[in-house]
Amino acid sequence: MEELLVFLELLGTAAFAVSGAMTALRRSLDPLGVVVLGLITAVGGGVLRDLLLGITPPKIFDDPLSVSIAVAVSVAAYLPPVCRWLMRSTILFEKLLLAADSVGLGLFVVVGTQLAFQNLPEGKWFAVAFLGTVTGVGGSILRDVLVRDVPYIFRKHIYALAALAGAVVWILCHLYLNDTAALLLGSTVVMVIRFLAAHFRWSLPPAKVPEE
Amino acid sequence: MEELLVFLELLGTAAFAVSGAMTALRRSLDPLGVVVLGLITAVGGGVLRDLLLGITPPKIFDDPLSVSIAVAVSVAAYLPPVCRWLMRSTILFEKLLLAADSVGLGLFVVVGTQLAFQNLPEGKWFAVAFLGTVTGVGGSILRDVLVRDVPYIFRKHIYALAALAGAVVWILCHLYLNDTAALLLGSTVVMVIRFLAAHFRWSLPPAKVPEE
Amino acid sequence: MEELLVFLELLGTAAFAVSGAMTALRRSLDPLGVVVLGLITAVGGGVLRDLLLGITPPKIFDDPLSVSIAVAVSVAAYLPPVCRWLMRSTILFEKLLLAADSVGLGLFVVVGTQLAFQNLPEGKWFAVAFLGTVTGVGGSILRDVLVRDVPYIFRKHIYALAALAGAVVWILCHLYLNDTAALLLGSTVVMVIRFLAAHFRWSLPPAKVPEE
Repeated sequence: MEELLVFLELLGTAAFAVSGAMTALRRSLDPLGVVVLGLITAVGGGVLRDLLLGITPPKIFDDPLSVSIAVAVSVAAYLPPVCRWLMRSTILFEKLLLAADSVGLGLFVVVGTQLAFQNLPEGKWFAVAFLGTVTGVGGSILRDVLVRDVPYIFRKHIYALAALAGAVVWILCHLYLNDTAALLLGSTVVMVIRFLAAHFRWSLPPAKVPEE
Repeated sequence: MEELLVFLELLGTAAFAVSGAMTALRRSLDPLGVVVLGLITAVGGGVLRDLLLGITPPKIFDDPLSVSIAVAVSVAAYLPPVCRWLMRSTILFEKLLLAADSVGLGLFVVVGTQLAFQNLPEGKWFAVAFLGTVTGVGGSILRDVLVRDVPYIFRKHIYALAALAGAVVWILCHLYLNDTAALLLGSTVVMVIRFLAAHFRWSLPPAKVPEE
Repeated sequence: MEELLVFLELLGTAAFAVSGAMTALRRSLDPLGVVVLGLITAVGGGVLRDLLLGITPPKIFDDPLSVSIAVAVSVAAYLPPVCRWLMRSTILFEKLLLAADSVGLGLFVVVGTQLAFQNLPEGKWFAVAFLGTVTGVGGSILRDVLVRDVPYIFRKHIYALAALAGAVVWILCHLYLNDTAALLLGSTVVMVIRFLAAHFRWSLPPAKVPEE
């Protein structure tokens, strides 16, 4: 179980690093900028989660493996053949970015939910779900704010609801099945919701406002 | 006393939720974006305050009532009749946004100052005032950064000075009157300063800079 | 030793306050905005560092001297004669901003590295270097995000590498020389790398991307 948790967090770190590096590529940052944004996106959610749970210093700071993976993935994304491949069409680029971000989100939500559960008193389900959701979306918000994009969470594919659904599924599976199922099903739910939302262009009607 | 504190924090949460939801409406975000920004604005200052004071996890995460109120207020702001009413004139909209933000600021400053006082060693008045000010302005900064506005604190109506004045008034009332007076007078001072500054268009001369 | 640490942190605080105030001047903020941005830039890195190390409330909140210096420096930068002198040429302005930012970065990296070392178990060199780097760059990222600039760290003069090099030099000096040398040499390395990078316009090739 503990190994699955570590593995999923590592996978989520890599996925968020891809999304950060791709965002940096789109902004034409230099290679160091690509690595820095990949790394910040990859570790941001976990750092926020640990700070909120009172775990200091955040574990990522003593985890050379995760950091190395995030850096390696970001460097790889910058390499000309990979970069060219990623960039060969805007539509494909957006789909890959969505995929990387969704995988990262799904995994960080369930890992965050489980760690919140382990660090809070028994029965605080509201707090567990809320913390899991927040720590899942943290890295993505940080990534977008740093390059001055409007964060995904405000505009894309029912982002916050997908994260919340994943946390709730984790809790239900934890109560009625087991934690392995909770991790796998919870993250799958997040990814499936986001892919469906993107594929069928689910969107909510924006408020109508007069011209400014 | 403790009840007054809880009540004022709840009222401040609702006021900041209104300001966040209105900011989201102005940006034509979808309803989920309106709720997310309302919620982040409402809880942001309190989370920052608790992290700075070493209270983990921040209390808001175990406070379904505050979160529900912030969500309900944000949903209400999005409802077409309310939204239309809010938007019927730009000038009115700006005044309502200013009012919501000022009420939230005033209440969060005094609540933050009191909590800083309760969590710090006796006599640390500088730290109490500084923490109260910072935790008051935190939610508003987060709101504006997330939608890429220049934060109020850099441009509006002597924002930071009003917050600091509220914290100082809280301390003076605490020393020479009582804590109920401190909460009520401190928050009133913040709101009055901001309303006067807005009404009389008090402003400080920007630095003159050559064209870039 | 302890005195040198305090002195260097104070000097770094002043330097970052200058960089924040100058950034605010360039944006034509009013004097209160200049002071607020100077102060946030000056204290931001230290607050982030203390939160990551679990030191709450962050020490700056009980340090009227540092805060007064940051405020005084920011006020001074706004004074018409100083402001006019700073602004008399764009090239000079950029050089002074770079200098202030580099001095602040160098000093905060070594101070952050040393404090991380003192607050972590013996031998956690990876964590010490990582925390030192992060806490060095924190204030500058905050400054740029708040006024909606793309942070220096993504675009300027191998910013992150210079900070990392300073942290590594601190560790090497600590192991083979002494802590005074570590503080002085580490910060010097950061500044020299950044001045050389700026002078010789070292830059890394941005990724080539198709038009959007």
